[in-house]
Amino acid sequence: MRLITLKDGMRPAALVASPDGDRVIDLSGVAESVVRILGDASAADAARAAIEAADPSTLPLRSEVTLAPPVTPGTIFAIGYNYRGHTAADPDAVVADPAHPDVFVKTANALRGADEAVVLPLQSEDVDYEGEIALVIGTAGRDIDPADALGHVGGYTLLNDVSARDWQNRTSQWTLGKNFDGFAPLGPAVVTPDEISNPADLVVEVERDGEITVSQSTSTLIFPFAELIAYLSQAVTLMPGDVISTGTPQKLTSALATHRPLAHGDAVTIRVAGIGELTTRFVDPHKTPAP
Amino acid sequence: MRLITLKDGMRPAALVASPDGDRVIDLSGVAESVVRILGDASAADAARAAIEAADPSTLPLRSEVTLAPPVTPGTIFAIGYNYRGHTAADPDAVVADPAHPDVFVKTANALRGADEAVVLPLQSEDVDYEGEIALVIGTAGRDIDPADALGHVGGYTLLNDVSARDWQNRTSQWTLGKNFDGFAPLGPAVVTPDEISNPADLVVEVERDGEITVSQSTSTLIFPFAELIAYLSQAVTLMPGDVISTGTPQKLTSALATHRPLAHGDAVTIRVAGIGELTTRFVDPHKTPAP
Repeated sequence: MRLITLKDGMRPAALVASPDGDRVIDLSGVAESVVRILGDASAADAARAAIEAADPSTLPLRSEVTLAPPVTPGTIFAIGYNYRGHTAADPDAVVADPAHPDVFVKTANALRGADEAVVLPLQSEDVDYEGEIALVIGTAGRDIDPADALGHVGGYTLLNDVSARDWQNRTSQWTLGKNFDGFAPLGPAVVTPDEISNPADLVVEVERDGEITVSQSTSTLIFPFAELIAYLSQAVTLMPGDVISTGTPQKLTSALATHRPLAHGDAVTIRVAGIGELTTRFVDPHKTPAP
Repeated sequence: MRLITLKDGMRPAALVASPDGDRVIDLSGVAESVVRILGDASAADAARAAIEAADPSTLPLRSEVTLAPPVTPGTIFAIGYNYRGHTAADPDAVVADPAHPDVFVKTANALRGADEAVVLPLQSEDVDYEGEIALVIGTAGRDIDPADALGHVGGYTLLNDVSARDWQNRTSQWTLGKNFDGFAPLGPAVVTPDEISNPADLVVEVERDGEITVSQSTSTLIFPFAELIAYLSQAVTLMPGDVISTGTPQKLTSALATHRPLAHGDAVTIRVAGIGELTTRFVDPHKTPAP
C-alpha cells in the first residue's frame, strides 16, 4: 500500500495505480489515521480489502487532491553523515566511518506535505537540500534487537532535509539551521514494507532543475536501517508514527562543482524506485512573480 | 495562576494556596487544556473567576493528585551554555560570550510530569541534572521583536535537563544524550506572568540530596528570555504550548568538587521563588529495594 493523508480533513487514503495515473481512495471509513493503519494489522487488512474492492476509474486522480504529510510524527529523528563517500568540503577525502550515528531532530514547525512549497527564509543566504529515505515506525519499541528492527517499520517515505548551512554552522548544534518553517517536506506516501523488495539496495536519486545531483545506493550506508532503529531505541521508546530520516547520500562530484544555494523557483525531486517521488518547489515571497 | 495538568484524564487544573498547603481546583469545565488557558484571554478570565469563587477547604490537597506535565509541547527547545560563569571542565576559565544561542531539542519520549521518577538507563554511566527555567509560549509568533517577546510567554515553569554525558559527548550532536526516556521532567505548574515580578532577576537554586549545588540569577544570562524568543522566532513559528528551556546555571565550585553521576535513590530539586519547586527522584530498576 501507498498510504497518504489528504490535507482536506487530514483523512487517511491510499494511492491506487490506474491506466491514466495514480488515483486516490479515501480510507477514513477504515481507520482514523495512516499511523493506525501502519501499526494495526486488522486496520491494515481492512485498508487492503477496501483498495482491492474499489473500481479505480471511479476514484479522483492524485492531481485533484492536496497531500498533507503522510503522518504527523511525534518526533522526526535525522542522521548526520551516514553514506560512505566524498564530502562537500573535500571531494577526494576518505572519511573514516563514525563510531555512532550522529542524531538530530527535525521539529514540528518544519513538517510539510508533498504539495506545499518551501519558503526560502530571508534570514539565510545558503539554503541547501538533502534527499533521504525516511522510515516510519509502525510498532512501538525500546531496546530493539537489530535482527527484529525492520519489523518495527510501518513503511518507507522520503524526506528533504532542507538546511540553512550558514545557520547550521554558526553554533555547535545544528537545530535551527535544520528547522526553519517548512524545512522538512515529507512524503508523498508511506509505502508499506511488502512493496520494498530489498531495503539494503535502494538507489536514492535527487534531481535539481533537470540535473541529477545524487545517485547512491543504501548499500553504502554506514549504519543500515536496522542498526539505526536498534541504536535509537537504546535511548528512546520509538512510537508509531515516529520518523527516522536515514541520512543523505553524497552529492555527485559534477553537482558539487556547480552547486549554488537554492533560489526562487528551484525545484528538487527525490526519487527512489518503489517508494516514489517527492518534488519540492522553493519560493522567495519577496521575489515576484512566481516562475 | 499556577496551572497544572492532572494525570487522571489529562484535565487542566490550578493550584490554590490554603492554610494547610496547596489545593487543587479542576478547570476542565473552563477549558480543554492548560495551553488553551495560557493563550486565550477569555479562557484565562474564566479560570481566574473559577479560582476566586472556590472555597479552598472543599478542594483536594496537592498531595492527593498526580501531576502530568503541565503542557504537552509541540516542541521543547533547549539552550546550551547561557549563564556566565565557570564551566565544569575548568572552574577558573573565563568563557567568552557566544555570538548566538546554541539550540537543541528535548523530544516527546523524554517528557515527564513532576510526580514521575526518572529511570536511570543501563546504557549510561554518567547521568547528570541541569535545573532550568522554562518558558511556555502562550501566543504564536514568528519574527518576534525582542521588545514584544515577553508578551508571547503564557507562563513560566521548571525543567530538569537530564543528560547522559557519555552519550552527549560521543557525537557532534547532543540529541540522544539529552533524550533518553524521561530525561525532561517539566513542572510542576505553569505560573502566569502576572505572578513573576522581574524575570530578569530570578534565582535558580538546585538542591541535590540536601546540598545546594546551583544558585545563580537570571541577571547573569547571556541571552535573556526576550532575546531567546526573538532569536528562535527568526527560524521557527513558535506555537502555543511550545517550551523554551532557557539554559542551566553553572554548578557551584563546592558542588563541582563533590560531583558524581546520579544514582539510585538520588533526588534533585529545582527551586525558583514564584515559579515553584520541581523535585525529581532517580531510580535504577535493577537495584532493589527502592530507598
